[in-house]
This record gives sequence, structure tokens and C-alpha cells, in this order.
Amino acid sequence: MKFVTAKDKDGVFVGFLNEDNNSVLPLGRAEDKRTVENYFPTTMTECIAHGEDFIKKVENLIEWASTSGEEKELYIPLEALELLAPIPRPAKNIFCVGKNYAEHAIEMGSKDDIPEHIMVFTKAPTTVIGHQEKVHSHQKVTKELDYEGELAVVIGKAGKAIKKEEALDYVFGYTIINDITARDLQSRHQQFFIGKSLDTTCPMGPWIVHKSEIENPNQLNIQTKVNGEIRQNSNTKHFIFPVEEIISVLSAGMTLEPGDIIATGTPAGVGKGFKPPRFLNPGDVIEITIEKIGTLRNQIADEY
Amino acid sequence: MKFVTAKDKDGVFVGFLNEDNNSVLPLGRAEDKRTVENYFPTTMTECIAHGEDFIKKVENLIEWASTSGEEKELYIPLEALELLAPIPRPAKNIFCVGKNYAEHAIEMGSKDDIPEHIMVFTKAPTTVIGHQEKVHSHQKVTKELDYEGELAVVIGKAGKAIKKEEALDYVFGYTIINDITARDLQSRHQQFFIGKSLDTTCPMGPWIVHKSEIENPNQLNIQTKVNGEIRQNSNTKHFIFPVEEIISVLSAGMTLEPGDIIATGTPAGVGKGFKPPRFLNPGDVIEITIEKIGTLRNQIADEY
Repeated sequence: MKFVTAKDKDGVFVGFLNEDNNSVLPLGRAEDKRTVENYFPTTMTECIAHGEDFIKKVENLIEWASTSGEEKELYIPLEALELLAPIPRPAKNIFCVGKNYAEHAIEMGSKDDIPEHIMVFTKAPTTVIGHQEKVHSHQKVTKELDYEGELAVVIGKAGKAIKKEEALDYVFGYTIINDITARDLQSRHQQFFIGKSLDTTCPMGPWIVHKSEIENPNQLNIQTKVNGEIRQNSNTKHFIFPVEEIISVLSAGMTLEPGDIIATGTPAGVGKGFKPPRFLNPGDVIEITIEKIGTLRNQIADEY
Repeated sequence: MKFVTAKDKDGVFVGFLNEDNNSVLPLGRAEDKRTVENYFPTTMTECIAHGEDFIKKVENLIEWASTSGEEKELYIPLEALELLAPIPRPAKNIFCVGKNYAEHAIEMGSKDDIPEHIMVFTKAPTTVIGHQEKVHSHQKVTKELDYEGELAVVIGKAGKAIKKEEALDYVFGYTIINDITARDLQSRHQQFFIGKSLDTTCPMGPWIVHKSEIENPNQLNIQTKVNGEIRQNSNTKHFIFPVEEIISVLSAGMTLEPGDIIATGTPAGVGKGFKPPRFLNPGDVIEITIEKIGTLRNQIADEY
């Protein structure tokens, strides 16, 4: 199951994306046609917070739609919609794991940069944009804008001191994040936050894939292209810290909540890793593809 | 003007605290008695977002209360209320400036640790608690819990690329934060986030003082006591980066929003700075006093 947050002339809604990835069932609107008692909350985070009950209600609605005789009218072609980030405004900063692939840690410095313990920084909620939205070039504040393709984990239920063995029970699903980074700001300010939180530097999407479709998040091909050229090409099996461990360490003393988003780190091949570095320029198109999820595509704006 | 978020048997509300700091006018409830058209939003962040209009409406309400003949019934004694953090659930992580007093940078390492550029990390919204609420001791995850008394700036209106000269126009007011830190986690995980984001480690309050009462935030005495013993004793004039510069640098490429909270860094005298270090233990009481604001008091819980 895939879930989108989408927009058309009638507003923003949460929708179910069909298996062919070309047609969306707007949950609230369809439910309104089925019953006067609309179950579905209006935002993805609220839907996620309903837990397994939400999934069951979606299954029921899909089933009803298929037998209603109105299936064609209920679904909207994907191409007629604007996709927003699946969680357009997270309720807190996005958690990000730094240097979670050894080859990337080495390209950013040396073998000494491979972390012994999980490094976590955050990106402000104001960074989030959706699939196909433009990334500001931020030329007034950085000369070193860089891409980072990453698998992102969306938390499904609240938990604290979560054991590794149970960690995946706390996941709702997975999406893709481009952790766009101003390298000059990242190093100038030591702590990563400022270089990681420029407006529009967290493209997310195109949708959330429910965990039922991804048995092992630590075994997914991940690839980033810039203007069609492959720059990052790896597999999440190369994680230094797998998803279970990230959730366990993060939640040791901090409560995780439904709708929390964890970007799991980026593989080797970022712009800064090249000699000379290959930073992003206005007009550049970045496409990140992760197996079983899809492709997140964004372009750097020509204007600031 | 001082504003509280408080709770009694009838619920949570935003209130105006009188000059003697002993009596609270619950804005929404008083307005209900004055008119059928209640102006006041229910949360502090929404009130702040109304800008100068909010302040004018509060002034009108205070004036009406004083002439209504029911002033005594409208105000509630402070001691009858439970104070929550003025912003109990921020809409994003709290921004925190690291090492903003030279003496503190030196006590954490050496003169080499005095930053040339502003360092910013964040604390999760789940860390926030109010005045007099208990801080978890977190003994299962840290052996080195430490205090950090800090002036906090509450942003009043949205802005980006804010000039230093105009920065204070974007401030709503000021409060106190205890940026409680697990030193062992802070160093083990390199980036500060994990060591700074254990649940309950951001006591905030007791209230927000409107900017009209604090002409210069860079000229305020700040003192921290642990069990009555003075540990930190400084003045915000020793900031390496004054409030105007922090706002300017943070907003250079990132939009600041009403209700955003910036902790401005802590002076020398933290537990880790002593030889041997003096970390917090269950039962310890931390009191942070800032001139023109008040005193934020919290105790470390006996239990985890």
C-alpha cells in the first residue's frame, strides 16, 4: 500500500495510490460517498496515529470502491494531482543519521570518520517540500549545495526504550528524502543544523510505502542521479547502523511519536566526495530511486 | 507584560500575569464574560502569531477587567494554578546556540573551543516541561546529567534573511530554559542532538516576558543555583553572539516563525566544568534566575 498527500482544485487530501502508481483514491472524499460517518482524519500524521485500524479502514474502502460500480469516478488520475510531501509539515524536526555508510564517511574525510556510535542531527520542518517541487538555490548563503539520497523511516506508534527486536513494529512505512546540504555552512558552524536547514532543502516523497510491502529496510537498492548521471549507487545493506538499531538508540531516552521521520543517512557519491567537488547548480535535476518505493525528483530553481 | 500557559480543573489556558506575579487573568475565560465574540486563541503560539493585535486586545481586556467591578473574580491566584511551559508543545525543535559565552567554551575544553561562527543544535519538542515539573533522572541511559541555565528568545513574527538592525522586531518576548544535557551521550554521539533530547530535559518558563519590558536582552544578569548553591553567575553581556546576530544568522536561509524558541547558550559553571565534575543526582533542585524575567525551578525525580 502506498499513501500520498495530494492537492487538486478542491484542496489537500490523503490518498491511496493504486498498484500501477497511476491513480489515487482520496480517502476522505470516497468515504463521504460511502457513509455519513467519515472515519478518515485530514492529515497523514493523524491517519498514521490511528495505527492498524487506519489500514483496515483503507482496505474496506478500497474493497467497497471496487464493488461500488463507481470506481472510475472515485479514483483520480495521478497526473491530475500535485503531490505534496507525504507529511508536508512534520510536528517536529526530521531526525537525520549522519555517516551511516562507511564509504560515505571515508569520502567526507578518512576512515577515522566512520562513526562508532550513531550520529544524529535534525532538519527544521520548514525544509520540507514534495516531489517535483523546486529547491531554492540559496546562492546568497551557500556556494556548496549538495545532494544526499536517503531512505526515510516514518514512525507509526509512540514508543520509548524500544528494543531492536521490536523496532520494526514501531514503523508505519518508508519514503525517500533528499537531505540537501550546504557544505560550507555545515563545516563553518560545526554542528550540522544550520547547513542542513535552509528552506526547501528536504524534498520528501513521492509517497509513503506501508511497511507491509518492505520486509527488510536494510536490503534495498538506492540510487541518485544528477541530470541523468548516476552519482550514488548502493544498497541499504551497507548501513553501519541498521534501521532497528537507529530506532533503538534514538528512543532510549526520547519518546518517538507517530509521524516522526528518520532519514537514515546517505551512501558514497555526494558532490563533495568528487575531486574537484561537484556541487549543485540552478537547473540541476536530482532523482533518487529506492527499490520498492519509487523515484523522488526535484530541480534546483533558477532564481534564488 | 508576562504571559503564562496554566492549568486548573477547568483546563489549560493562556493567561496574563499581573505585575505582582501573584494573580492570573485567563484571557479566553475573561473575554467570554466581556463579549460573545471571543478574540483569544487557545494556545500561546496562536496568540503570538496574532502579533501586535494580540497585545492590544490584552490591554483592552485588562482595562475592562479593572473597571468591571469583577476584577477579583476574573483573576485567579497564581498559587491555585499549575504552570505549564509557556509553549508546552513547540511546533518544531527548540533551536539552541552552543558555546555562546567564552568562559563556558573554555571550561568545556580550551580557548580553542571558543567558536568563530554560531553553533546551533536542537532539542526535540518532547523534551519540554514547565516550571516545577520533575526532570527524569534517566539513570538507565546517562551517568552525566548536567544543567545549563539559558535566556530563551521567543519569535513573534515570520521572517527570513532578517537584518541584525531589525532582529529585535521579530521577537515576541523572553523566557528561561534549562538546557539539561547528558554529557556522556553528547560526546559519544558527536552531534549534540541525542545528548540534548532526553524526555523532560527542557524545563521552560515560568512565563514569557513581553519584549516591551526588556529593552536589551544582551544585558541581563543570569544565575543558576543547584540545591541553593550558586553555580552559574554571569550576564548576557558576555554573549559571544548577541541575540540580534543569532536571529540574523539563523534566518539567513531558514524562515523563522511565530512561536519559534531559541536558547541562547549557557555561561560558565556547568557541572562538567568542575574538577571533579558535579553532575545532577535524583532529588537535586535547579533554580535559574534571569533579571527582569524570574526564576525557573525544577527538581530531578527520585525515580527514573
